[in-house]
Amino acid sequence: MNNYFLRCITCKKEFDPQPGLYYCEDCGYIMGTLEVVYDYDTLRVDAFLKERIFDKKASMYQFDFLLPTKPKCKFDEHIGGTPLFRFDLLGIKNVLVKYDGSNPSSSYKDRASSVAINKALDEGNDILFCASTGNAASSLAMLNAHTDIKTYIFVPASIPAGKRAQLEISGAEVMAVEGTYDEVYDVSLELGLKKGWYCRHAAINPYLLEGKKTGAFEIIIQNDFEVPDYVLIGVGDGTVISSLYKGFWEFKEIGLTDKIPRIIGVQAEGIPAIKEVFDKGKPYVPLAIKGNTVADSISVGNPRDVIKACTYIEACNGYFIALTDEEILDAIAELGKETGLFAEPAGAVPFGGLKKLIYEEKITESDTVCLVITGNGLKDVSAVEGLINTESLSIKELEKRFE
Amino acid sequence: MNNYFLRCITCKKEFDPQPGLYYCEDCGYIMGTLEVVYDYDTLRVDAFLKERIFDKKASMYQFDFLLPTKPKCKFDEHIGGTPLFRFDLLGIKNVLVKYDGSNPSSSYKDRASSVAINKALDEGNDILFCASTGNAASSLAMLNAHTDIKTYIFVPASIPAGKRAQLEISGAEVMAVEGTYDEVYDVSLELGLKKGWYCRHAAINPYLLEGKKTGAFEIIIQNDFEVPDYVLIGVGDGTVISSLYKGFWEFKEIGLTDKIPRIIGVQAEGIPAIKEVFDKGKPYVPLAIKGNTVADSISVGNPRDVIKACTYIEACNGYFIALTDEEILDAIAELGKETGLFAEPAGAVPFGGLKKLIYEEKITESDTVCLVITGNGLKDVSAVEGLINTESLSIKELEKRFE
Repeated sequence: MNNYFLRCITCKKEFDPQPGLYYCEDCGYIMGTLEVVYDYDTLRVDAFLKERIFDKKASMYQFDFLLPTKPKCKFDEHIGGTPLFRFDLLGIKNVLVKYDGSNPSSSYKDRASSVAINKALDEGNDILFCASTGNAASSLAMLNAHTDIKTYIFVPASIPAGKRAQLEISGAEVMAVEGTYDEVYDVSLELGLKKGWYCRHAAINPYLLEGKKTGAFEIIIQNDFEVPDYVLIGVGDGTVISSLYKGFWEFKEIGLTDKIPRIIGVQAEGIPAIKEVFDKGKPYVPLAIKGNTVADSISVGNPRDVIKACTYIEACNGYFIALTDEEILDAIAELGKETGLFAEPAGAVPFGGLKKLIYEEKITESDTVCLVITGNGLKDVSAVEGLINTESLSIKELEKRFE
Repeated sequence: MNNYFLRCITCKKEFDPQPGLYYCEDCGYIMGTLEVVYDYDTLRVDAFLKERIFDKKASMYQFDFLLPTKPKCKFDEHIGGTPLFRFDLLGIKNVLVKYDGSNPSSSYKDRASSVAINKALDEGNDILFCASTGNAASSLAMLNAHTDIKTYIFVPASIPAGKRAQLEISGAEVMAVEGTYDEVYDVSLELGLKKGWYCRHAAINPYLLEGKKTGAFEIIIQNDFEVPDYVLIGVGDGTVISSLYKGFWEFKEIGLTDKIPRIIGVQAEGIPAIKEVFDKGKPYVPLAIKGNTVADSISVGNPRDVIKACTYIEACNGYFIALTDEEILDAIAELGKETGLFAEPAGAVPFGGLKKLIYEEKITESDTVCLVITGNGLKDVSAVEGLINTESLSIKELEKRFE
């Protein structure tokens, strides 16, 4: 097992890892503030780090020297190792596209769920819980189905039948609770922490970001250790963007790279909670806003990882932008036409963000840009139904057309 | 380029490969009968075949010495190389599960589409066409979007908006034709062959089975060259089952294995067209039946690859069985609960078939069985909406439950 400890990014207090310790006792559990700190000094002088990476099959566990647990589940060797494509897009010659829609449950969330399950096994916990209506829950339910650990998922009773069906099919016990998402989240978190169930909330449990950061590691190794100038990523709760920063930072810290990219968070104009906090400046004060967007995976008014997200993005000279729903839907369609890749709305926002930043001349031809697509378009087909052409042809008209 | 020629499995006539030559001039194009024949004698004495496989990144192009084209597209290195899981299921200790839902377009069809696109590029063709309402079309549209070759997809005008949207989003030109699927298929095939467009119909174009057979190769190499006793696969048009036989046969022919598994085709009782032809016995006479099933990807009344499917399955001492829609839906749910894997209905039928054959004592504890799951459950979430529990809890009831 690797050596690591926990440190609060707000008050800098340090903690020894212990089962059930997810949050800083002084700063509370409403927002995630703990980060996992490894023995970077030892890793920096390890001459065989690259060999340790490439000796293993492509997956998130290639980077086991920077992870807080070891792979023990059937799915682990198939999580991560997702494609990095290179396209000439929108006049920019080097657009890298990291496509996480091909993870087992078709989203980026598998990287965090895998760590959660392995940590729960390490600690001998027999229940894992999560409040989510979407990708985090279906990921946990799928990856945990074959273990002896129970999966409890807390959702608002109002979620669509299809989403609930996916959770139940993967063997999770679904608690459909009459209340808003925020109410369900709060009551389940309180219950889970009290009961000592293993917590799969990436914004609270610091170990889950450790799984998510492997996306950054893969971008680097798949691009021959060249660091892109910009990385664009959709932002809801703030966990993926925080994890990407941590990954890029760690690779620089241990000497595998020499810079950190500017990370740009793309939100929906309908509910840009983290952007508002960031734009107001330090000290970052969490807020809860109301709003909505077609991009359900980033429709978050009360983001739980806002402190880390703002602190980290400031550290890499990044910033946040926001798109209208129309821009988001256009981004799905244009990304598809240019690359073939079908992204869920929240997965397409980096492409929409790139388009906006090119228009504003903030990103130019010579920049290397990486877009991170976090979810498969099949996750939300209904979002794109409005985009179709409705023309039809009779057989005679068809034959005539191609005479 | 590998040496190969084409041979009709019905009349045994041989042909030199030529652009536009997809069918035997004597036996016609209504059914696929040509197969691609390589120089097996030379491959059999090649002492470095395994090195040639394992020197490459895991993908369908690891087996380039048995493919009719070379990879030239961005997606090629990410097609195939899909997981093979090992589970203890239904009392059978060694159940291998090949999960092709993690291909780029989330189905097995990518293996054939990739070959179609690379062959069209080889031949300098500028249009690829396909009649399909489902996985074949969305696969072709996605993988071909970034090339200069146009994609024409012919569908009945009545297909759901979501399916059409996925096709258009990936840049395909969708011809929505007023007619039944069979009418649209026939008119588009006639038109495409007349115009000389490249044909992406796996039952007609023999090269496409070459892509699909790589699933069999992967099962072998991922299981350390041990051949399973049984392989179960869903059957509609008959192309995947035919391709699996060819793959297992070729690995035996070149000396990499010493047997071919018994391949069992699983159809839907509502429309078991190939089973009916097979059960009547030789000579296999194609028929068109009417019917329906919840498993839309195998809802085929006029299967185009019936001759190959029956001939090959007889050769490996296999057979066909059929499941009711209820058994198919149960299979999705039970597969999910046991493994976490979420399969579309046609992808879950091998699990349902295994259950049936265990009940009938045709498969027993000591057999090694491989189930091939051809499509991600996200392809058809509506199919499982009826499976959910509809109970909900108030917050008070929730708290009480866990007191």
